[in-house]
Amino acid sequence: MKPVAAAALGALALSLTFTAAADTAAMEGEALLATAQQLIDAAKTDETGLGFVEGLTTEIGPRLAGSPDEQRARDWAVAELKALGFANVRVDGFTIPYWSRTHEHLTVLGPSAQSMVITALGGSRATPDGGLEAEVVRFDTLAGLKAAPNASVTGKIVFIDEEMFKTQDGSGYGLAGLKRRECAKAAAGKGAVACLIRSVGTQHHRMPHTGVMDRSGPGGPMPTGALPAAAVSAPDADQMTRLLARGPVRVNLDIGIETAETAPSGNVIAEVEGGALKDEIVLLGCHLDSWDLGTGAIDDGAGCGIIVGAAKLIDALPGKPERTIRVVLYGSEEVGLFGGDAYARQHSEELGAHVLAAESDFGAGRIWRFQTRFGEGALDHAKTIQSVLMPLGVSPGDNSAGGGPDIGVLARSGVPVVTPSQDGTDYFDFHHTPDDTFDKIDPQTFRQNVAVYAAFAFLAAEAGWDFRAPAQSE
Amino acid sequence: MKPVAAAALGALALSLTFTAAADTAAMEGEALLATAQQLIDAAKTDETGLGFVEGLTTEIGPRLAGSPDEQRARDWAVAELKALGFANVRVDGFTIPYWSRTHEHLTVLGPSAQSMVITALGGSRATPDGGLEAEVVRFDTLAGLKAAPNASVTGKIVFIDEEMFKTQDGSGYGLAGLKRRECAKAAAGKGAVACLIRSVGTQHHRMPHTGVMDRSGPGGPMPTGALPAAAVSAPDADQMTRLLARGPVRVNLDIGIETAETAPSGNVIAEVEGGALKDEIVLLGCHLDSWDLGTGAIDDGAGCGIIVGAAKLIDALPGKPERTIRVVLYGSEEVGLFGGDAYARQHSEELGAHVLAAESDFGAGRIWRFQTRFGEGALDHAKTIQSVLMPLGVSPGDNSAGGGPDIGVLARSGVPVVTPSQDGTDYFDFHHTPDDTFDKIDPQTFRQNVAVYAAFAFLAAEAGWDFRAPAQSE
Repeated sequence: MKPVAAAALGALALSLTFTAAADTAAMEGEALLATAQQLIDAAKTDETGLGFVEGLTTEIGPRLAGSPDEQRARDWAVAELKALGFANVRVDGFTIPYWSRTHEHLTVLGPSAQSMVITALGGSRATPDGGLEAEVVRFDTLAGLKAAPNASVTGKIVFIDEEMFKTQDGSGYGLAGLKRRECAKAAAGKGAVACLIRSVGTQHHRMPHTGVMDRSGPGGPMPTGALPAAAVSAPDADQMTRLLARGPVRVNLDIGIETAETAPSGNVIAEVEGGALKDEIVLLGCHLDSWDLGTGAIDDGAGCGIIVGAAKLIDALPGKPERTIRVVLYGSEEVGLFGGDAYARQHSEELGAHVLAAESDFGAGRIWRFQTRFGEGALDHAKTIQSVLMPLGVSPGDNSAGGGPDIGVLARSGVPVVTPSQDGTDYFDFHHTPDDTFDKIDPQTFRQNVAVYAAFAFLAAEAGWDFRAPAQSE
Repeated sequence: MKPVAAAALGALALSLTFTAAADTAAMEGEALLATAQQLIDAAKTDETGLGFVEGLTTEIGPRLAGSPDEQRARDWAVAELKALGFANVRVDGFTIPYWSRTHEHLTVLGPSAQSMVITALGGSRATPDGGLEAEVVRFDTLAGLKAAPNASVTGKIVFIDEEMFKTQDGSGYGLAGLKRRECAKAAAGKGAVACLIRSVGTQHHRMPHTGVMDRSGPGGPMPTGALPAAAVSAPDADQMTRLLARGPVRVNLDIGIETAETAPSGNVIAEVEGGALKDEIVLLGCHLDSWDLGTGAIDDGAGCGIIVGAAKLIDALPGKPERTIRVVLYGSEEVGLFGGDAYARQHSEELGAHVLAAESDFGAGRIWRFQTRFGEGALDHAKTIQSVLMPLGVSPGDNSAGGGPDIGVLARSGVPVVTPSQDGTDYFDFHHTPDDTFDKIDPQTFRQNVAVYAAFAFLAAEAGWDFRAPAQSE
């Protein structure tokens, strides 16, 4: 094992509390930290992780949930993970309700006839052949639609023009996503015939932003929601508002779709098999599916590249870590977290053996904070990990980590999780649009992510810490 | 007439040489300068010019040369210019060979099957029904294609991956545009079946860039060029290059078009009618047509707004200027400068009465330099104008102005021209793409343009200077 600068590590080690000594860790104290540092150094020139996302986005491209493209992506990932030397590479299959677009057009009619750039929302119904013609009624917000009298909406196409603003933590997406999820149902309840929304996202290009709408039915998710629904690009939303300021606007909305009650999907799993504690699992997650407009580079090829790159660095160490590191490339995340739910169902009997879970699904921006959700008795371990990551520009976070979309179900079942918080200021400039392509990944910040994941996953797998440990009684 | 601050003008006037005294100017010296300054001040809150481009891009939208949309734009502009109170509003009609796209798709075939974002070049031929299937052969540059042996190209689809870089003066466009113009002819000469180019332009979004290709025929321009031809977006060009690095790439290219040997177009003309010298013309030009992908805001709705706004400010002065200011909204510029040629032909007998011409066709970026092409005996007038513009951040330029695309024919026939050089650093981020929309215009720099045009056009119309004046013999 490559020796590390003693001065640097000595200074770091002095500040750390090693509660691992009583556990089963093969490495302890300085040796543990030295190896974590070695992984961080190696990540600076990582090619495996970056190559994984380059290959996935180039050779497969878009990977819509339930589509033949997602199947190709699973086959590709299995072959790639085997070639990288991972153990126990396999697919856990499941099925989902399937939806895809076939065409989508919005045309303003009358004296200002012109086309607008739109994309159907995931779960949109089809319009009748040749499209649906109606007048547009605009609302500043989803709340405005909900408060409107039915008579002002009946027979019309609702247009919600709510804007989203940039935030480092992506918190603007929660509110902005609501109009996408709820517009059709709210509009249908008032007798509207279709729903248009200003694209979610923070860019002002002629790039429409797709994403799933509410498709809940009596027996679970259905292929479609309540109405035909589409997002217009931000410049087209402005144009629509300018046209409406001049008088009534009639449009033709033409959306075609394909659906199936069930379609095949699956989670791709690979492992760095552990040693003495190999039945204990440190889970690193991402999702393999993507929306169909881009090639799913930042969402979420990057996440898969980061965890595969990190796990591969650990796998390349001379000895096995004590615990097993399990990499899970979830399927069908975008259309309803189906992969996360399937994993929790299919692995329900071993959830107690999941000692830690993390998920990378927010692009490849620099990690600036490291949050945990550990038992109160394990917070010293959080401090140890945070101290190791601090030289990478990562601030310590609190103990309220959410984990991530697909591992949320694990967190709720009691599995300790961490959230390495990425800078997402620019994430929604590309997310769910045609512009989500490989060139949008910054190799430098990508590699910082690989370093963070490699370091904490190694520590969690090797040190044998109990992250569930309850508060110690005095 | 509103008085201006005497101190500011007094200082300016001291530095100027007034050779106008011997001419027929109604205003002289400080009064002339004071009025120019008044126009500059008024332009700071201009709404007319900005309103013109807002209206044109909103109410008409895209305005493809020879299309019914361009006809609607002429009707709209005539009504608008009349409503603004301009004199002699009219259309000089002409016809052009017509081309438009109906559909365009590029699909990678085989194990990496995926769609790419493309747009047909203006003048592309159609592919056979269902598209044309062939292998792609890549060249770094147009020169590389030209140097390639025929056998390496025959039966294939050529792909030229030449990049364009940002420059303040747009000089990168000359080189980048060559691959667009010449690819199909060069490829056809070597037996290729179609041509793809990396989109011209300086952005890295999934925005394809259209523009006209070489359509020269024995009897003049024809509706189509030598082959089916399209531009792929920059991210897709990168993707194609990555795929080709892995092995041969077969694609299906599917382009549909509509053409006509002749279609109606026209130049829209309006005037601020002069006084004593009303037969002498100061011409301000822009072009009314646009490419079909965007709404033609920066190219060239902005130019039309700038000259209309400037002319309207002069028209609003209490007295008429001595000479006539003629605003020309050229038709069918994008597809071959048809409007400029038609104007020169239709007005050949009065070209000698055109004392000055200028054209705004490079967006709405800040004017940073003011070039002239005057007779050597008129360079003092250039200095006078440049001194007036300097407080607007405009540097004096040399005497080698080109004028602009549509007035090039006037310049070549001896009409003095000026070039108010705009900062075009970001112009090719939007130009000829779907992203050329109203929101891309900065109202502040737009108004600076209106100020510059109003000031120099007023001086040229009022002072009676002879811009053709030959060098004075000693």
